[in-house]
Amino acid sequence: MKTLGTLGERETIRIIEKIIKSDATIGPGDDCAAIDIGNRYLLVTTDMMVTKAHIPKGMGPYDIGWSIVAVNLSDIAAMGGTPLGLVTAIGITRGHPIEFIEQMVDGMNDCARRFNTSIVGGDTKEHDDLVLCGTAFGEVAKDGILLRKGAKAGDLIAVTGSLGRAGSGFFSMKKALGLKEAEDALKRPWPRVREGMLLSKSGFVTSAMDISDGLSTSIFELSRNSGMTFEVDYTRIPKAKEVEMAFHDLERQKDLVLNFGDDYELLFTIKREAEDDLGKLSQECGCPMTVIGKVTSGEENILIDNGKREKLENLGYEHFRTRQP
Amino acid sequence: MKTLGTLGERETIRIIEKIIKSDATIGPGDDCAAIDIGNRYLLVTTDMMVTKAHIPKGMGPYDIGWSIVAVNLSDIAAMGGTPLGLVTAIGITRGHPIEFIEQMVDGMNDCARRFNTSIVGGDTKEHDDLVLCGTAFGEVAKDGILLRKGAKAGDLIAVTGSLGRAGSGFFSMKKALGLKEAEDALKRPWPRVREGMLLSKSGFVTSAMDISDGLSTSIFELSRNSGMTFEVDYTRIPKAKEVEMAFHDLERQKDLVLNFGDDYELLFTIKREAEDDLGKLSQECGCPMTVIGKVTSGEENILIDNGKREKLENLGYEHFRTRQP
Repeated sequence: MKTLGTLGERETIRIIEKIIKSDATIGPGDDCAAIDIGNRYLLVTTDMMVTKAHIPKGMGPYDIGWSIVAVNLSDIAAMGGTPLGLVTAIGITRGHPIEFIEQMVDGMNDCARRFNTSIVGGDTKEHDDLVLCGTAFGEVAKDGILLRKGAKAGDLIAVTGSLGRAGSGFFSMKKALGLKEAEDALKRPWPRVREGMLLSKSGFVTSAMDISDGLSTSIFELSRNSGMTFEVDYTRIPKAKEVEMAFHDLERQKDLVLNFGDDYELLFTIKREAEDDLGKLSQECGCPMTVIGKVTSGEENILIDNGKREKLENLGYEHFRTRQP
Repeated sequence: MKTLGTLGERETIRIIEKIIKSDATIGPGDDCAAIDIGNRYLLVTTDMMVTKAHIPKGMGPYDIGWSIVAVNLSDIAAMGGTPLGLVTAIGITRGHPIEFIEQMVDGMNDCARRFNTSIVGGDTKEHDDLVLCGTAFGEVAKDGILLRKGAKAGDLIAVTGSLGRAGSGFFSMKKALGLKEAEDALKRPWPRVREGMLLSKSGFVTSAMDISDGLSTSIFELSRNSGMTFEVDYTRIPKAKEVEMAFHDLERQKDLVLNFGDDYELLFTIKREAEDDLGKLSQECGCPMTVIGKVTSGEENILIDNGKREKLENLGYEHFRTRQP
C-alpha cells in the first residue's frame, strides 16, 4: 500500500496537483494561484504549520504568529504581488492559556502591519495540538506577474539577501551557540514583499520563487518549470556571516547554504543585459541582490565550487518521506 | 489561569476579534471578510476541520473533501457572493494511503465544480491527525453585500430549505436508523450559493448569515449585530421530515431543529413589504424560503410555540467549553 510516508511530500503534492481541476490562470504548482479578476490577477496562497515539523522549540507564541503570516506573504512576494490581506485559522488545545493566543495574534498583527497589510479574519477550533493555517491574498498587474517558469538560456540567476542564516539560527538554538541575529531570522522570517513588488515592476525578471525549502530545491523547481538547466557558482552565493560560526566543517556549511532553507529570500532569473539595472534596484530598496550563476540548456543542474563542476543535487527540506538511518 | 477550555470557543473568538487590527471594510465577525477592490468587494473566509470535533465516524474521505469546500462556500453564500475559487491545506499522517487523499481531493473538486468554481491551490503537511483548512474567496457588488447587521424592527425573518436534517442524519448514524437522505445531508452539506447570489441581487434582504452553528445561535448573532430582538414562531419553522423519525420526543425534536446546526441553510431578514417578492424568488431558484418570524425592539429573543411565548435560549454548538456533567 502506497502511503504518504513512502511517496514523500513532493510526490504527494504532485499527485494532488494532477487531480485538482483548477479554473485559475495559474493553478497549483507555483508560489500562489492567480485568478483573472479583470484588469489584474488576484493572488492566493495557503500554508499550514504544525507544531512538530515546523515550530522549533525556542519559538514563542509571538514568533509563531509572526511566522505564519511571514511565510504566506513570502509567497505573495515571490509572484511580485501587493498584499491585500490574510486570514488565519488556529487549531489549539483547550489547555492553552489565553495569553498564549493573545501573543500569537499580536505576532500575526505585527507582521502583517509591518508589510502594510492586515489580518482580516480567521477561525479557531479545538484540537489536540497547535496547528495554524494562514492564507494570504494579493494583487499583481497582469504583465508584472512573476512565475516559476520563463527562464531562458543566457539569463542570469540571482538571489536577494544572504543564505544560511535561518539554518545557522537553528543549529545555534540546538547547540546553544548564542547567534542571536540568526536565531531571530529563523523565528521571525522577513518576507521580501517590497523587493518582490519592485522586481515585478522592473520588467527584467524572467522567473522567480522563494527559497523557503532551500536553494537546491528552488533551483530545481525553476529549472523544471522552465525546461532549462541552472549553473550556480557556489563562491558567488552570498552567505550569512553566521554560517561559519555554526559549523567549522566546510561541507556542513555548504549543506546549510544549499539545502537547509527557511531563509525566505527570493531566487529569480533576469535577462542577461539587466545586471546593471539589478544593481540599481538593489540599491533603491536597500536589499542585496546578487547574481550567482546563469541559465543554460545543458543536461543537468551544475554547481561550480572553486572551479570544480559537480552535479547540483536536490536535497532541500522534505516532509513525509521515511528517512533512511 | 484562563484557558480556552474555561472561556469557550465563542468568547475566545471574541477576544481574538478585539485584538486583530483589520484594515478590511468588513473584518472579523461576519461570515466573510470583505475587502474593497475598487468597484466591488473581495470576500474571504476560512474554516478548519479537525477529525475529532467535526468529522463523524461514518464520513469517508470523499465526504470530508466535499465538506471542507461546502462549509466555506456557505460563508460566501451568506454574504451574497459569487465564488472565485478555493485553496485547501491538508495536514495528514504519513500512514494515510494515497487513495484516501485522492478520494478526498475528488470530493473537494466535485463540490467546487457543482457550485461553478474550483480548487486553485493548497498545501499538504505531515501531521499526527487529519486536519483540513479551506479558504474560499468570492466577489460581490458593493450594494449587494449581505451582512449580519442591518435588520430593523418590522423586518421579517426567513430561512432557506428546512432545518434539522443534518442533526437527524447524525442521530441516524449513531443509532443506525437508516435515514439515508439525512445522513447524506450531514456528510455532504449543500451550500446555498445560488440562493445567496439571488438574495444579494434582490435588494430586499436587510441581514443574513448561514445556520451552520444552529438556528438559535444564528438568531442571536443577527440580533446582537443589529441591536434588535427576534421573535420566532416555532410552528412556522420548516422542519426536515426526518426529525420526527430521529426522535419521538417533542422536546428532543425541538432541540434538533433549534440547536443542532450543520444544516448550512441561510437565515436572513427581509423588508416587511417583500414577502411576496420572496415567494417569487423562492420559486425562481426552486428552493423553499419560509418566513418564520419578525424583528422587534423588545427585551430578549422570543420563541412562540403554540401561542406560548418563551425566551429563546442560545444553545448552538460550541467547542472548547468544558461541558458540565
